[in-house]
Amino acid sequence: MRATVLHGPKDVRLEDVPDPRIEDPADALVRVTAACVCGSDLWPYRGIRPTPQPRRLGHEFVGVVEETGAAVTRVRPGDFVIAPFAISDGTCPHCRNGVTTSCERGQWWGSDTDGAQGEFVRVPLADGTLVATPGVPDDAQVPALLALSDVMGTGHHAARAARVRPGRTVAVVGDGAVGLCAVLAARRLGAERIVAFSRHRDRQAVARRFGATDVVELRGDEGAAAVRELLGGVGADTVLECVGTRESMAQALATVRPGGAVGYVGVPAGGPELPIDRLFGTNVTVGGGVAPVRAYLPELLDDVLDGTLDPSPVFDLELPLAEVAEAYAAMDERRTIKPLLRP
Amino acid sequence: MRATVLHGPKDVRLEDVPDPRIEDPADALVRVTAACVCGSDLWPYRGIRPTPQPRRLGHEFVGVVEETGAAVTRVRPGDFVIAPFAISDGTCPHCRNGVTTSCERGQWWGSDTDGAQGEFVRVPLADGTLVATPGVPDDAQVPALLALSDVMGTGHHAARAARVRPGRTVAVVGDGAVGLCAVLAARRLGAERIVAFSRHRDRQAVARRFGATDVVELRGDEGAAAVRELLGGVGADTVLECVGTRESMAQALATVRPGGAVGYVGVPAGGPELPIDRLFGTNVTVGGGVAPVRAYLPELLDDVLDGTLDPSPVFDLELPLAEVAEAYAAMDERRTIKPLLRP
Repeated sequence: MRATVLHGPKDVRLEDVPDPRIEDPADALVRVTAACVCGSDLWPYRGIRPTPQPRRLGHEFVGVVEETGAAVTRVRPGDFVIAPFAISDGTCPHCRNGVTTSCERGQWWGSDTDGAQGEFVRVPLADGTLVATPGVPDDAQVPALLALSDVMGTGHHAARAARVRPGRTVAVVGDGAVGLCAVLAARRLGAERIVAFSRHRDRQAVARRFGATDVVELRGDEGAAAVRELLGGVGADTVLECVGTRESMAQALATVRPGGAVGYVGVPAGGPELPIDRLFGTNVTVGGGVAPVRAYLPELLDDVLDGTLDPSPVFDLELPLAEVAEAYAAMDERRTIKPLLRP
Repeated sequence: MRATVLHGPKDVRLEDVPDPRIEDPADALVRVTAACVCGSDLWPYRGIRPTPQPRRLGHEFVGVVEETGAAVTRVRPGDFVIAPFAISDGTCPHCRNGVTTSCERGQWWGSDTDGAQGEFVRVPLADGTLVATPGVPDDAQVPALLALSDVMGTGHHAARAARVRPGRTVAVVGDGAVGLCAVLAARRLGAERIVAFSRHRDRQAVARRFGATDVVELRGDEGAAAVRELLGGVGADTVLECVGTRESMAQALATVRPGGAVGYVGVPAGGPELPIDRLFGTNVTVGGGVAPVRAYLPELLDDVLDGTLDPSPVFDLELPLAEVAEAYAAMDERRTIKPLLRP
């Protein structure tokens, strides 16, 4: 089969690799019908995280089950399935606590098994990991379902970690797909005011479509001051940090009000550590982390299937898998919010 | 009048100082009937925080209103009042959000006005700051009421910040007065299991009386492992960090389960900054800070007055104010959990 392999900085290739096969009775084999590129894929793509040897890429996909191991009972060949970005067994204490990303038998796409940006994927712990839709969805539904594999659940996690609820004011740092989904999640959870930080007209438009009531183009202290002005002189009750850089966390901490909460889901790229004296003095809570998307999937899937939740506008570019290198380049150069790949 | 003055490391003296008087229409003048020494007083006492010039000490007291400024309407001469450890106006946006320690006009005892360890205290913003009891309490009720000025509200804040609720498992780091009150707060909020870290028999006894179901004497990784063993193989749902040192925060982070929460109220003494990569990977939420005791006072006072809450056992030493130097020495040498001073 063909799959995406990273060889070094900005060197992404679609290559022939060995066909996957069932290796364990808990495995399933899935034919990928759609995958995508994540902002976190850019860290190794840009060389910020080194690639000492060629590695498979991609951790977001939907597809159709081709074959299952003897121990698999919850999905069957022919099922359309959504694969969250982390593999989990669904039965360990952490999974039962809803923290599927801390699964005692957890694995990661691309390092422990196939990457998602390929034609087929071997899925370990298939019963715990995969979520099947009630039937095979329309092709038009695929982008929204694919968003549930990562960005929608991750934006939702930011909002949950920051305890967004009806009446709350929210500011969202980051106008990538996760930040936009965080806007959508905040609206879904009943936020009263949602301020999106964004300097890009196309992303601002998606943010407003997703429920942003205000857009702030300024950054740093000026951006924080602009949010305070919008929100009656105090900071936001909750800030959703969806980038993972030093600047984005500083923006979040500058924007939240005393006693407020920052929900963060951007993969921390080199710190900084959190300034405890400042957090202590202002009673700001910081929560979040690598989103347990699997735990949120059933609830979010219901809303996608009944038409009340549609994160699909984050995909503004669709390419065949053969053009995966262009998908990465477009993502890297911010020519796209998020590209969808069809094998 | 006489009041406590710190001159340098371990040099605490009761001295004659000018009598306070009403300086602002919002002031009240309170005759102190009981005050106490706080763990955070030990930082300047030990010289960890320098004392460039003599300073007043004490931020926890109860007493009787002697005189009020013309603008004061909520307390009257003769009222018995509890003074939380921070001065707040009760009307600014942060006070209305319950974050009274971030009051826009907030002040601190001992630096902005008199210290509490004296015969009289000028109370700025008296209407916002003071809470009067319905009548003048029995002398026997005074210790429990005094505990509401800081330690009980602070322990409660740790528990609230960590979202302790019925059925949760809790570990408490720190067996000082705040840690012990955190045990009591966790029980009051319905925690199912409460593990107290303590190596001191007398403090273990108070912890058990306050609701600790288990005591762990080990520390570090061994202590965290002991908690995991008690709690079915995973860490605690919530950990209440009530010390403020590098070691105590490390203990908290080692003891909490993935997806759990650390509530911290120990004044951070020199860091460390919070390790964001580790928090991200384990989805641990960290919340807390300088406790908005004023906001919690009415709720906790009701429970003290109806007899369902009694934090008074944290006071295991009572001295006349004249012996304040001995109170500090006993606190410093851990010969007492918390000393109560009677002017």
